[in-house]
Amino acid sequence: MTSPTIVTAAMLAIGDELLSGRTKDKNIGHLADMLTLVGIDLREVRIVADDEEAIVDAVNALRSRYNHVFTSGGIGPTHDDITADAISRAFGVECIHDPKAMDLLGAMYERRGMDFTDARKRMARMPAGATHIPNPVSTAPGFAVENVYVMAGVPQVFQAMLDALLPSLETGTPIQSRTVRSPYGEGDIGAPLTEVQKKNPETSIGSYPKFDGKNFSTDIVIRGRDAAIIAAAEADVISMIEAIGRLREEKQP
Amino acid sequence: MTSPTIVTAAMLAIGDELLSGRTKDKNIGHLADMLTLVGIDLREVRIVADDEEAIVDAVNALRSRYNHVFTSGGIGPTHDDITADAISRAFGVECIHDPKAMDLLGAMYERRGMDFTDARKRMARMPAGATHIPNPVSTAPGFAVENVYVMAGVPQVFQAMLDALLPSLETGTPIQSRTVRSPYGEGDIGAPLTEVQKKNPETSIGSYPKFDGKNFSTDIVIRGRDAAIIAAAEADVISMIEAIGRLREEKQP
Repeated sequence: MTSPTIVTAAMLAIGDELLSGRTKDKNIGHLADMLTLVGIDLREVRIVADDEEAIVDAVNALRSRYNHVFTSGGIGPTHDDITADAISRAFGVECIHDPKAMDLLGAMYERRGMDFTDARKRMARMPAGATHIPNPVSTAPGFAVENVYVMAGVPQVFQAMLDALLPSLETGTPIQSRTVRSPYGEGDIGAPLTEVQKKNPETSIGSYPKFDGKNFSTDIVIRGRDAAIIAAAEADVISMIEAIGRLREEKQP
Repeated sequence: MTSPTIVTAAMLAIGDELLSGRTKDKNIGHLADMLTLVGIDLREVRIVADDEEAIVDAVNALRSRYNHVFTSGGIGPTHDDITADAISRAFGVECIHDPKAMDLLGAMYERRGMDFTDARKRMARMPAGATHIPNPVSTAPGFAVENVYVMAGVPQVFQAMLDALLPSLETGTPIQSRTVRSPYGEGDIGAPLTEVQKKNPETSIGSYPKFDGKNFSTDIVIRGRDAAIIAAAEADVISMIEAIGRLREEKQP
């Protein structure tokens, strides 16, 4: 096969409520699923509070290290929504009321007969020069600056923005995976699985213990970017499980 | 009141499966809930892959910055379980088969008539000098080195280890919170809520939009470390919502 293209990403989830336990994040898992599908490798996630310093530090650390950075949260109309300010500071540009976003929101509130309050105008704030990420759910756009994509924290809105954004992004060769269920725990498969991994170096083989309250079993996941290579490793894993089964039968009295 | 004691923490969740979307993390939200209850402020969470470099970097960044660091994942018996090695490297100590853990596991497998395989012996590995975190679910202990607490990724085991660990940790003055439901969206409450926050600087007031598919409403959460101060802020929030309601009624034809 031709050598695969690797495109990497990080996510920054922003919000006190995620760290207090009040809100259980739903965006990280969704982003992970979507990026895996399109061929972007999610390499790191951070969750920080609504704290400008913490957001700036994290964004600057991540945007230099990965191809794409996705953020969630902190772009609403209230005083604790400070993501636009923090991203502007991270890039050293002014945070402005974006004229196009003001038009979009002004027209929407006029249509709905609602006041375009100062609070609502906050939702048009973004770093000067940012481009919009459309929000088909509730109009107020997310925004992109270079390789940083700033989206809402409300899952329905985050998901809609991501759907709008993803087709425009650089993607790589998708990682494919196959899962083999092992009725044996990790303690039984550990040593032979290490051999299977060594024999199949172009795949990444992970084992994920499951516990039903009494016994452990294992899901063995083979990941790679080439279907034939994955299939060969999968066959080795299946042979390994069969061999463990035979060994156990022989031991029975 | 006497000045509150602030104790901070970070979490590091370790595992390729969290970043591929295969596993949806359940430990972050649980840890956040538990720490909030006992009076430890969770300030940052990171998720990294089963990658020694990434784990070492994250642990070293977090353990110097926060009072406590909790990790999940990567302490099982298979080749992709490399957390013990990474934590040892982060602290510059040797990763050994801990004698007490070897005894504990050896006895358990003997009782169960199972082989104490080399893979299972991997679960006794930890940095030299580490202390155990008991595992009442499946025996293999977690471990603590200085302010870093290394626990399993399987949620039942993570939770049991955390229950065993928490009573021994330094805690601070718990943050208490009160939630006020607002039938109005953030755009309506943004400006007056900023005033309420300014009037109550010893509280942290957050607003969390909810979307039912058609309309936005808001949960307003007041956080602080003193019940009387929180109650005063809560009264201001309730008055604010009533005032918005009156204003709306006056506007109706």
